[in-house]
Amino acid sequence: MTLSGERFRVVYCLAGSETQARVTAQRICLEQTVELPEEVVPAGFIRDEVVGRIEIFETGPTGFEVTISYAVETVGAELTQFINIIFGNISILPGVKVLRFELTPTLFEKFHGPRWGRAGIRELLKVPKRPLLCAALKPIGFSAVQLAEMAYQLALGGIDLIKDDHGLTNQIFAPFEDRVRRCADAVARANEQTGERSLYVPNVTAPFDQILARAHFAKESGAGGLLICPAVTGLDAMRQLANEEHLGLPILSHPAFQGSYLTASENGMSHFSLLGQLTRLAGADAVIFPNYGGRFAFSKEECLSIVAGTETVMSNVKAIFPCPGGGMTLERIPELLEVFGQEVIFLMGGGLIGHSPDLRANACHFRGLVNRLS
Amino acid sequence: MTLSGERFRVVYCLAGSETQARVTAQRICLEQTVELPEEVVPAGFIRDEVVGRIEIFETGPTGFEVTISYAVETVGAELTQFINIIFGNISILPGVKVLRFELTPTLFEKFHGPRWGRAGIRELLKVPKRPLLCAALKPIGFSAVQLAEMAYQLALGGIDLIKDDHGLTNQIFAPFEDRVRRCADAVARANEQTGERSLYVPNVTAPFDQILARAHFAKESGAGGLLICPAVTGLDAMRQLANEEHLGLPILSHPAFQGSYLTASENGMSHFSLLGQLTRLAGADAVIFPNYGGRFAFSKEECLSIVAGTETVMSNVKAIFPCPGGGMTLERIPELLEVFGQEVIFLMGGGLIGHSPDLRANACHFRGLVNRLS
Repeated sequence: MTLSGERFRVVYCLAGSETQARVTAQRICLEQTVELPEEVVPAGFIRDEVVGRIEIFETGPTGFEVTISYAVETVGAELTQFINIIFGNISILPGVKVLRFELTPTLFEKFHGPRWGRAGIRELLKVPKRPLLCAALKPIGFSAVQLAEMAYQLALGGIDLIKDDHGLTNQIFAPFEDRVRRCADAVARANEQTGERSLYVPNVTAPFDQILARAHFAKESGAGGLLICPAVTGLDAMRQLANEEHLGLPILSHPAFQGSYLTASENGMSHFSLLGQLTRLAGADAVIFPNYGGRFAFSKEECLSIVAGTETVMSNVKAIFPCPGGGMTLERIPELLEVFGQEVIFLMGGGLIGHSPDLRANACHFRGLVNRLS
Repeated sequence: MTLSGERFRVVYCLAGSETQARVTAQRICLEQTVELPEEVVPAGFIRDEVVGRIEIFETGPTGFEVTISYAVETVGAELTQFINIIFGNISILPGVKVLRFELTPTLFEKFHGPRWGRAGIRELLKVPKRPLLCAALKPIGFSAVQLAEMAYQLALGGIDLIKDDHGLTNQIFAPFEDRVRRCADAVARANEQTGERSLYVPNVTAPFDQILARAHFAKESGAGGLLICPAVTGLDAMRQLANEEHLGLPILSHPAFQGSYLTASENGMSHFSLLGQLTRLAGADAVIFPNYGGRFAFSKEECLSIVAGTETVMSNVKAIFPCPGGGMTLERIPELLEVFGQEVIFLMGGGLIGHSPDLRANACHFRGLVNRLS
């Protein structure tokens, strides 16, 4: 069989001595493709082209950086198999981290990424320039009526994207359908009053057989976007939402259960590759991540590397919004505007709820701050 | 609202000083449920019952071990939300590891786990006692005809479970439907000759919208089981396969892309909880993992903790097979029989292919060794 010769590239950071790193690099080439000891790999195109190939081996700031190329034919047309090739078995080996990847025209034809991206979301909201604002409905335990009232106040206060907390699923407190109907209605009512276009973004992280049904229900009920935790549902469920016919809602990706890829310095995937590149390739229009200086441990540099991943050139895959959140407060807005600029969605959850008992006033204050400073 | 008072428990290992660990424990209680600063958590049942509760705080061998209980109502009936509660946001915080969890009657009514389990697979194969044997069809690049010939030889040689390599998906070399038909036929032909009941186990790790279709196609084509990588597809896709009507095939769970939960000592999930308890709860009948002393870094103790997780009492959730593989060789069988005993599936991939050019003879040798020693 003759292959096309088209090869995509993955850059890994390898721990250990140079000798160890060279052994690991060879091993990745086999492990991620033929999964055979080298001596029994069939000669011919399998040995010459299917096996991964070391293209560059160099010293990086935190380890040896090796660029390995793979034949596009090993992936076929499936994002699931792409994930498996870049970091399937090798995820189990300590000391291997995916730094970034570079696709090829054939793969870009197959993986379209987000439907809306930054420009699309701005167009939906009719907000051409300023940073967008997002707030969360919570907590678990509130009724659908209470959550809808929150949504109403937040929309009146000028929040662009009003999302479910990712822990709101289908519990007895606020069952999915009832909640979605009420919250979507509440936001629509507020929009009529304000003349703005706030979007309600329900959480469709759900059992496998209910994700699409909930997404379509949400759309029919007037929701303006969808929230999903791709590490819980599988990244490809998000791609499906982005590609699903007659759906067409912007998608926010939430990092719950995804942290283990990111917490270890020597293992896993870089913030750039996982929350930037891969999340984008899997169809998210915005990626939520814990902001530096909040409750989690991401550094400013890591956050900015996510931003870079959301906009790095990837053929015609659209740039998506970084959406820093998690322990943010209104006091930090001026600083965050300087760091993230205009192309960002600021997510404020507890910080907005805790600012004062008047949620609408808090939202107005948030919006006013952003309007004034940007 | 009045809750049932029924609470399930998760045991976390926390790094750092005792003071730090106590702060982290409090934080988990909020983060995994209401996701609000403590001062704004609504009074009443939300503060008293929805928020996680520290039940035990003690010193463990590798850190502080804290047992946190959560109201069953925070989960509802969904495995996806169960995953989110036990390790959603908190996966992003360094120094938190899930050690184990304990469900309650209400949750056991909702999560049934595997359909077959150890006893069911033995019944399907009519092998009451000895360890079971599994081998893999590979590599990527082989045609469906070549893979089917391998399957035929392996079945003639007495291998019980003949699985696709997890990297065989739907590439041009051996497209899914053609491969599955040919391999299932090959194993059926061999079974007619041997009088045994080898099962062909194709890989249904696939795009979201194709998993079920491939699984049903496999069943209709005579496949005897299904292989899936739940970290790629989402764990709940596996649960769906286990629960799917008119399917009813045993399921092998493959750890590709799952390693990041396991590679760091202080973060992630324990081998026991992820590859034992959770994989089982999500419907696998057998869990593949890299054996100690092979190509990966799992220790013997970690492997045995997986075994413990496959059989620890979990109400009426069936015990499942541990399936150690990854760099195993025939020479190690005597040792492995001593370590794992009879209730195991030995997976041999490259080690079987590399033993000699005669695959059937290698399989016979493998089977003979196991027969003789067990």
